Amino acid sequence: MSNVKHYPKHAWYVACTPHEIEGKPLGRVICGESLVLFRVGNGEVAALEDFCPHRGAPLSLGTVEDGLVVCGYHGMKLNADGKCAAMVGQRVEKFRRGIRPYPAIERHGYVWVWPGEASLADPGLIPDLHWARSPDWAFGGGMFNIRCDYRLLIDNLMDLTHETYVHASSIGQPEIEEAAPDTVREGMSVTVSRTMENIPAPPFWQDALRGNNLAADVPVDRWQICRFTPPGSVMIDVGVAHAGQGGFDAPESCRASGIVVDLITPETDDSCWYFWGMARNFNVGDKALTEQIRASQHRIFTEDLEMLESQQRNLSANPGRSLMQLNIDQGGVHGRKILEELLARE
Amino acid sequence: MSNVKHYPKHAWYVACTPHEIEGKPLGRVICGESLVLFRVGNGEVAALEDFCPHRGAPLSLGTVEDGLVVCGYHGMKLNADGKCAAMVGQRVEKFRRGIRPYPAIERHGYVWVWPGEASLADPGLIPDLHWARSPDWAFGGGMFNIRCDYRLLIDNLMDLTHETYVHASSIGQPEIEEAAPDTVREGMSVTVSRTMENIPAPPFWQDALRGNNLAADVPVDRWQICRFTPPGSVMIDVGVAHAGQGGFDAPESCRASGIVVDLITPETDDSCWYFWGMARNFNVGDKALTEQIRASQHRIFTEDLEMLESQQRNLSANPGRSLMQLNIDQGGVHGRKILEELLARE
Amino acid sequence: MSNVKHYPKHAWYVACTPHEIEGKPLGRVICGESLVLFRVGNGEVAALEDFCPHRGAPLSLGTVEDGLVVCGYHGMKLNADGKCAAMVGQRVEKFRRGIRPYPAIERHGYVWVWPGEASLADPGLIPDLHWARSPDWAFGGGMFNIRCDYRLLIDNLMDLTHETYVHASSIGQPEIEEAAPDTVREGMSVTVSRTMENIPAPPFWQDALRGNNLAADVPVDRWQICRFTPPGSVMIDVGVAHAGQGGFDAPESCRASGIVVDLITPETDDSCWYFWGMARNFNVGDKALTEQIRASQHRIFTEDLEMLESQQRNLSANPGRSLMQLNIDQGGVHGRKILEELLARE
Repeated sequence: MSNVKHYPKHAWYVACTPHEIEGKPLGRVICGESLVLFRVGNGEVAALEDFCPHRGAPLSLGTVEDGLVVCGYHGMKLNADGKCAAMVGQRVEKFRRGIRPYPAIERHGYVWVWPGEASLADPGLIPDLHWARSPDWAFGGGMFNIRCDYRLLIDNLMDLTHETYVHASSIGQPEIEEAAPDTVREGMSVTVSRTMENIPAPPFWQDALRGNNLAADVPVDRWQICRFTPPGSVMIDVGVAHAGQGGFDAPESCRASGIVVDLITPETDDSCWYFWGMARNFNVGDKALTEQIRASQHRIFTEDLEMLESQQRNLSANPGRSLMQLNIDQGGVHGRKILEELLARE
Repeated sequence: MSNVKHYPKHAWYVACTPHEIEGKPLGRVICGESLVLFRVGNGEVAALEDFCPHRGAPLSLGTVEDGLVVCGYHGMKLNADGKCAAMVGQRVEKFRRGIRPYPAIERHGYVWVWPGEASLADPGLIPDLHWARSPDWAFGGGMFNIRCDYRLLIDNLMDLTHETYVHASSIGQPEIEEAAPDTVREGMSVTVSRTMENIPAPPFWQDALRGNNLAADVPVDRWQICRFTPPGSVMIDVGVAHAGQGGFDAPESCRASGIVVDLITPETDDSCWYFWGMARNFNVGDKALTEQIRASQHRIFTEDLEMLESQQRNLSANPGRSLMQLNIDQGGVHGRKILEELLARE
Repeated sequence: MSNVKHYPKHAWYVACTPHEIEGKPLGRVICGESLVLFRVGNGEVAALEDFCPHRGAPLSLGTVEDGLVVCGYHGMKLNADGKCAAMVGQRVEKFRRGIRPYPAIERHGYVWVWPGEASLADPGLIPDLHWARSPDWAFGGGMFNIRCDYRLLIDNLMDLTHETYVHASSIGQPEIEEAAPDTVREGMSVTVSRTMENIPAPPFWQDALRGNNLAADVPVDRWQICRFTPPGSVMIDVGVAHAGQGGFDAPESCRASGIVVDLITPETDDSCWYFWGMARNFNVGDKALTEQIRASQHRIFTEDLEMLESQQRNLSANPGRSLMQLNIDQGGVHGRKILEELLARE
């Protein structure tokens, strides 16, 4: 492997969901850093090196007591700053040595960490997931660990042509690859848009229309607007409306739409954490519908895993080999340029 | 591992059986090259690098349409020459860039590939498996992937002394190791012969005699004539005849015999594909007998796997350590010399 | 990994238990050396390189006949000196070449090997496990393979503070960490002692008291005296007595005690074999009690495995990072110094 890191470290990344640290610490590698995450109390969360300064045991095998993480080997207690706070029979409070703390914040339904220089960690840089704060939206999602460079997953989400092949039975349809995408870079984000008019709705969207109590066996207009924001966010406006009603601008009464939420965090150079989900603003009180959509999305996104991991193995076996840059690849190409600009600043 | 390859590349190797590429492409590593194999039509087969030039996905995860392999990620189609042939919404036919094709031919019940310089690939060099073209012969076989240098498997097959120990309950018997082998090199092939007279038939051969409607509980003469031809073919004339009837030259009416077919293809420096089987020219219409022999052979050859893979691990942990060259090892020793001569020419 | 070995080679190590070599050879890696162990007869055992000089197959896949190990591939027979002794159809006795033999002795219920220079192997250096030779003691035990540097296991056993956390439901109790340990080095051994007075007995010791037909729900005095002797022995005098009867010196009639037996053998730089058990001198004829204690100990010691292997992974990922040396760590710290002194002599 090359020693060149391909992810910015001065950035907020999703490390876990809040329920993963309920009542116990969690060990997770983020951007090559081995972290223990835990809940301090009062809505505060903490991230430290997952390395007890006493004998090197992982703190994530321990417990949490009164906002301190307690090593499960010999009982060293550390606070959210990574300082030795207490240990039975020992005066460890006097030690200047501790372990590295990482800025960590719980927001919008996720725990975010900043793996780089702590003094630069501005909470204002955490993206605003507006749907997570609103009663007008419902959300369901999940998480995968994928053995691929996180940029391959960004490429995947910025070129939905692959739906025709990888997801042929659910959200794919030939009309996607037949529609040319429109790619626009604005500042440090990139948007790839595709619209398809007067086409049949594929099975996933027929289910969604029915979930919104609308006819599903009529022609629709379909849209996909993928927006990448570094380091690892791809938000995709997706939906269908009965044909001829205005497409993306059609009234709520004849459409089903939502936001595909993709928050991607590098684990190592060639593996990543993928927090995925779907936010929708129709029929939001219907929890069975939320679960049905979540299960469909789980099944569909699982189809990408083998492809992404096989692609990674192929690329690792062929280092430096150049790939094509077709028009459908421009979203990913621009995304990588933005990441390289951020890395050059670091 | 050393960087010295121990297999010739300018040679035909069995890559797969035809049924492995029925209706879908197949990914397989041959001599360190990652290939996708597929059926073009009209009896033609093709082998390409298993690497889509678009984004590096393995083509073997895709499909085959009209003699083209279609990438399962975004739909790039490649022809048997490795050229971009079509892609919906793209004019990829204009690209000069493609991927490397490898000479591939279906013949004698196998798909053969030539991993070296294509211009040297003479189909006339494919060995003539005469029994595969004849109604007078029946054949059953299978395939293993073994984590050992292909030469260890050649050694194994050129010294059947091991049957006494590894296959004691089926084809092994003390009389094998008591009979001195006769080793002869002729040109680029080596033959090791062993004959045993007036001995009991071991269980496998008792079954074969009964399968040919002959008495099995009488003394027999037994023969094993192993012939190695580079790069990876070991054909073994094996059989028993009622004792005193002429042995190898005994009439059909008092013998059971056949050819043990061993076609060995390096996968990497320390792993290989092993296409094995048995061809026989008695009672050839009896499909149950074919299946019984195939199942026996599968069980017997499985006994070699642990030994070969353990031997490989031992040798890898002791690089450069020299081994003995007893008279029983001369078949393998000469085989390696022939391979080195071929490698020196390359 | 560093190339510096952390285990002395001029030392006796437990390689296996006698029942592991009943009727067949055993392959085992000891101090980085791949050995085959087998029983020669007359109470003698042998250890050789696990590498047949003929073709490099592991001898441990073979058999034992008349005190010789017989290779399972082609039948080479080797004697306890590593010399070729016989082979059907071959005159291998003439060969000067053989394989390396290692001093091996069966004693005190274990098979011991000396992986270093054979001429230095003095049987008088094998520790005297007096309880193994006495009808006044009963013993039960087992073996683990652990993916950690053997010194981490020595650290573990020389600081029983961890019982409070790792074994909270069996032998752990808060009073352990509250009692300061007393560490004494004498010559080439280290002893760490802890006594706790007038405390409740934890579940394991309540069971032991009941196993000795004593009241278990009364206050006890408890002791733990850990003694490390290089290279890998930690013998721990453990027990409880009804409170106020003299503790360690209390009469047999009001105590339950024993020796925790820990014999640790490096496998590689970061893995080890752990032969554990408990010897007791009360109610020694009660085999059900022996089995009950063995099963408890198996369950308890299993709790250490995840911690030790996780600690090793953390340390391997942070090479050279220094750890703390609290008073509770002094047993392990002195143990490492003793090992380094032995290594410096080598």
